Amino acid sequence: MVNLQEVSNNKVFGGQQKVFSHQSTELKCTMKFGIFLPPAVEKGKVPVLYWLSGLTCTEQNFISKAGAQKYATEHGLILVAPDTSPRGVGIEGEDDSYDFGSGAGFYVDATQEKWKTNYRMYSYITKELPALINANFPTIPDRQSIFGHSMGGHGAIVCALKNPGMFRSVSAFAPISNPTHCAWGKKAFAGYLGTDTKAWEEYDSVCLLHKYNGPPIELLVDQGKADNFLADKQLLPDNLIEACTATKSPVVLRMQEGYDHSYFFIATFIEDHIKHHAKFLKA
Amino acid sequence: MVNLQEVSNNKVFGGQQKVFSHQSTELKCTMKFGIFLPPAVEKGKVPVLYWLSGLTCTEQNFISKAGAQKYATEHGLILVAPDTSPRGVGIEGEDDSYDFGSGAGFYVDATQEKWKTNYRMYSYITKELPALINANFPTIPDRQSIFGHSMGGHGAIVCALKNPGMFRSVSAFAPISNPTHCAWGKKAFAGYLGTDTKAWEEYDSVCLLHKYNGPPIELLVDQGKADNFLADKQLLPDNLIEACTATKSPVVLRMQEGYDHSYFFIATFIEDHIKHHAKFLKA
Repeated sequence: MVNLQEVSNNKVFGGQQKVFSHQSTELKCTMKFGIFLPPAVEKGKVPVLYWLSGLTCTEQNFISKAGAQKYATEHGLILVAPDTSPRGVGIEGEDDSYDFGSGAGFYVDATQEKWKTNYRMYSYITKELPALINANFPTIPDRQSIFGHSMGGHGAIVCALKNPGMFRSVSAFAPISNPTHCAWGKKAFAGYLGTDTKAWEEYDSVCLLHKYNGPPIELLVDQGKADNFLADKQLLPDNLIEACTATKSPVVLRMQEGYDHSYFFIATFIEDHIKHHAKFLKA
Repeated sequence: MVNLQEVSNNKVFGGQQKVFSHQSTELKCTMKFGIFLPPAVEKGKVPVLYWLSGLTCTEQNFISKAGAQKYATEHGLILVAPDTSPRGVGIEGEDDSYDFGSGAGFYVDATQEKWKTNYRMYSYITKELPALINANFPTIPDRQSIFGHSMGGHGAIVCALKNPGMFRSVSAFAPISNPTHCAWGKKAFAGYLGTDTKAWEEYDSVCLLHKYNGPPIELLVDQGKADNFLADKQLLPDNLIEACTATKSPVVLRMQEGYDHSYFFIATFIEDHIKHHAKFLKA
């Protein structure tokens, strides 16, 4: 495979969970991603579902903890799980915070001098990675969907809203729904995008919903009621629902009693999310 | 709860995955274990299924990677997953090897001077831990089963064979079936039990099968054909099957094409194992 090195390969639920590394042109560093190939690829091309992880994660968290492969096998979907930021690019302070720099790319293209050369996760996720996946694996390129968790749940919604028609469906676990109005988002957007908050609106799902005029993004959101980041007002799902209501965008928000922000929450509801995407990907 | 400190508590698949720490009298150190309480405990007492992990693991691996809670909820079983050795007891060299000392207790009671005070995992698993669990959680004490992986898969079989009738069923993923005949086992048994190999036979499933005269242990074993430790002759499943055949012990060994030694393999077949145990635990 051009430009891809296989890092690992494990059989799971009848398919193959692989990790590849490659030299990213957008991020100017070596990146890893996980890809699960269901048994259905032996018979032909299949749809692909992208997963975007949250703060501090690498490609490993989703692969090893979500239990998603079982349902990707059942529905015949390829799953792709990239890393959450450039790695080891040598920017001063890149490893100082859990919520900024390494592991915290926030799926934006940075404009600030220090970060703009490498921190281009938005272009990586919406252009470079899909091109790489479609060139090297048996995907049906016009059948793709996207989902994610926390920072990545919001990233998934933003990628869909900024690219009408690119993804058939979107879902999120506990997304950071309105980053221009929470502490995590303000820190990250100020750092990557500068102090002009007008630029921030280009990467905020609530702001983008008001400008969106593509096909319905078919959004499913699960949010744990016992999530401490919900109590801390980092997630703000009410703002997302308000924007969906105001713009008549279809959304299902499920508030899940007793669940927190962890992969235990994700594992519990991953079956429902994959079923949601399969409905649109296989229609 | 007497003697128990709650370390964490996450809702998953409708139940609660908790981790507790406690001061172990057998091991003379602070130990942690995971316990999953299915929703069924709200209505009364339920059977309990013990999981013994493999080399290098703590209580976390099984909890976060096996996906077992889904099936424990379905069948109404408590799952208990202890750590794999004493921790931080200050024995010189305890952290030097991945396959001896910390993370590698091998579920034996050590007799060698240096290790015998703390390395009593066999007594911990078969006496102290069940007593603690039954005193503090809504178990049905005479309905318990045991399973595990690699070192812990063998540990599960040994605990059952040495305690006829204690466990209603036993299963194992890629057990180190005949430790007196493989490199891992020889190193561990020499270290914990000394150079007299007669003492080793008390903790080897193949040797114990020939002495066993209790009720059938109802053994299910899954083994990946692409497991590199199978090729390295650390696991020796043929020796286990030979001993089961010679002693007319019921056993089902499934050689799984393409699967390795990882938790991906475990996650794929955990549903079958829990169903196996539920059949006997709820009969």
